[in-house]
Amino acid sequence: MMRTRPLKVALLGCGVVGSEVARIMTTHADDLAARIGAPVELAGVAVRRPSKVREGIDPALITTDATALVKRGDIDVVVEVIGGIEPARTLITTAFEHGASVVSANKALLAQDGAALHAAAEANSKDLYYEAAVAGAIPLIRPLRESLAGDKVNRVLGIVNGTTNFILDKMDSTGAGYQEALDEATALGYAEADPTADVEGFDAAAKAAILAGIAFHTRVRLDDVYREGMTEVTSADFASAREMGCTIKLLAICERAGDGASVTARVHPAMIPLTHPLASVRGAYNAVFVESDASGQLMFYGPGAGGSPTASAVLGDLVAVCRNRLSGATGPGESAYAALPVSPMGDVVTRYHISLDVADKPGVLAQVATVFAEHGVSIDTVRQQGKDGEASLVVVTHRASDAALGGTVEALRKLDTVRGVASIMRVEGE
Amino acid sequence: MMRTRPLKVALLGCGVVGSEVARIMTTHADDLAARIGAPVELAGVAVRRPSKVREGIDPALITTDATALVKRGDIDVVVEVIGGIEPARTLITTAFEHGASVVSANKALLAQDGAALHAAAEANSKDLYYEAAVAGAIPLIRPLRESLAGDKVNRVLGIVNGTTNFILDKMDSTGAGYQEALDEATALGYAEADPTADVEGFDAAAKAAILAGIAFHTRVRLDDVYREGMTEVTSADFASAREMGCTIKLLAICERAGDGASVTARVHPAMIPLTHPLASVRGAYNAVFVESDASGQLMFYGPGAGGSPTASAVLGDLVAVCRNRLSGATGPGESAYAALPVSPMGDVVTRYHISLDVADKPGVLAQVATVFAEHGVSIDTVRQQGKDGEASLVVVTHRASDAALGGTVEALRKLDTVRGVASIMRVEGE
Repeated sequence: MMRTRPLKVALLGCGVVGSEVARIMTTHADDLAARIGAPVELAGVAVRRPSKVREGIDPALITTDATALVKRGDIDVVVEVIGGIEPARTLITTAFEHGASVVSANKALLAQDGAALHAAAEANSKDLYYEAAVAGAIPLIRPLRESLAGDKVNRVLGIVNGTTNFILDKMDSTGAGYQEALDEATALGYAEADPTADVEGFDAAAKAAILAGIAFHTRVRLDDVYREGMTEVTSADFASAREMGCTIKLLAICERAGDGASVTARVHPAMIPLTHPLASVRGAYNAVFVESDASGQLMFYGPGAGGSPTASAVLGDLVAVCRNRLSGATGPGESAYAALPVSPMGDVVTRYHISLDVADKPGVLAQVATVFAEHGVSIDTVRQQGKDGEASLVVVTHRASDAALGGTVEALRKLDTVRGVASIMRVEGE
Repeated sequence: MMRTRPLKVALLGCGVVGSEVARIMTTHADDLAARIGAPVELAGVAVRRPSKVREGIDPALITTDATALVKRGDIDVVVEVIGGIEPARTLITTAFEHGASVVSANKALLAQDGAALHAAAEANSKDLYYEAAVAGAIPLIRPLRESLAGDKVNRVLGIVNGTTNFILDKMDSTGAGYQEALDEATALGYAEADPTADVEGFDAAAKAAILAGIAFHTRVRLDDVYREGMTEVTSADFASAREMGCTIKLLAICERAGDGASVTARVHPAMIPLTHPLASVRGAYNAVFVESDASGQLMFYGPGAGGSPTASAVLGDLVAVCRNRLSGATGPGESAYAALPVSPMGDVVTRYHISLDVADKPGVLAQVATVFAEHGVSIDTVRQQGKDGEASLVVVTHRASDAALGGTVEALRKLDTVRGVASIMRVEGE
């Protein structure tokens, strides 16, 4: 049974993603109507530069006054693809207050203010959907929130930033250094002019906060996520990784900690075995492992960014929210009932690969080993290489807490025989 | 806000999956209540053998009268994990008529009578969910039906039967023959005593019908799915595959055909390149690729069967259906509006690998090549090997229709110089 009055959609932002959303809404209007049970129409598009020509969009719909658009009162769904904190936050809240549900692709905002936005949605009995905020087209939010709603998720581990994966993949496959690989990523449009958000891990950390919150039914804010970028990963690190049968990926890892009474969330480069499925994720693709009590290991893989893939995720949410409007219901809102504490990075337990530059003389290994033992960090393997009076020592530890490892490294730096700590990298996915 | 009157669940079947559903409902009762917004309680468990001891289930809940249980009138959700066509079909229909929604893991029934069951659900304004029917714990139905609701799916290609993947993986990695690998699968519990449903592709065909229906918004019945088992795959086929840089998998493939005006669904063994992610799916795991206009290529990977993984999928649906009950809404029902015709296998276009036993004398290749040309099948590569007056000819074609290939093979068999067609295998995933 098709309702004839169309649902009205306001689009905030008409860049790479927004223009693709508008295009598909037009070209696939009949399919969307059939799937929703009512036609959807673009009722307004808020942009910053109204003079820009936007193919396929009626110029009469274009406005620079986003606030007036979300306040119109006849809008069913606001699609926010502006990004950033303000004005997106105020516009979304205003949309709820004026009767609209919201579909957003805004990871930074959701990671920072997700709880307040969910509360605003709930106070107005509206939906807030944001599948596009994490890993582009890959269905991840919905599977975590709905498909696994009867399971206990223990771990989410994945590559959630395509830019950095492109760079690391390039370094691994061609032997290029970081800067060279970044330059190529920039030239190909995979990296922005200012790549900080990607290469310093801010983007991945926002996604980790969102995923951890949903997976563990606990509020996890951006500030709760330990973050380390990948700008200091070197060709030498890749060589070390290969010697261990590993490669290096920038990973987002959300885990239950200790006995499950707390959670941790972190983003950092890590060595993972070449046999791990994440090791073969190439280019700008994303992939996320989800480990749960009953389901075991699931993996979700696909394009993590780009206009079309992100638009696909936005439109999937749009269909769901429109269906909810028609049935007078709302979808699942924030689920934070577990309210587990978020443990600091020091409590994270993993393995470490440490390269030390040491004096090439007898007794050095014994000194170094003693320091590890004193801090309760158990050594798995040591490899010693001499070169002209200098030597390098590569230590791979058994599982130890980040705090214990930190203490170990601090003590190692104080040894006369240790000239420097060349690199410290976590080893994951084993 | 927690409602205190519990939602009542009737469990039909208490085997490997059912007992796990009951166990998780008990051990995770608080989590389920928090996620649903109301407690859920097991109100009855219908079994065939009531005397069997079932740990953790109150014996007072056990009944052999499944019909009476679904007719009680106070049941909110019936979970059907009996399998097979009857009595499951009648029980599900009766459940709808008596006010319950249904969660089912029954692929055979859904593939055969999905349309009628959806109609019964809709007539009674109830939900019919069945994530567990395809690929165990892997979220696939929900992503296809909801996450990709705003996209146009063009192709679903995957490994959806764990038993046959275990057998093929074993043959590939150890050089074992089919029977030896099957015996091991049986000994390890991966294959049933009667493995027909798995090895002849019936199980995968049912899943293909369900996936094609959802992906293309079109009714696809089990009879519409072309089906070829994998019992005739030999070690020699694996050797041929390796020479092409391929391995062999039993694939379910659902595609838009021709100009997109029809669809096809099929299950058969096929060679796929070792570089394709599906090639590295090991053991009893499942993995499914979904290709769509906007999202590009997505892959979903995980355990495709087993009590716990299947229970995870059932419970995810149970939470969704319970939420719908509380909000007075129903989730998305059958979407078959596109009503595309299902094309026969002859219309499928793909590449072929054909091994011929031929007479070892001049002119044979010319004769064979002429037959291919006469049927409009273009040859990509030919490899000729002589052995004691006999020779083998391995032909790999460019893309051709199954009908054209069939005609070619029929004509080849009539050639005096062709002693036999040793094998024909499709080449996919390139």
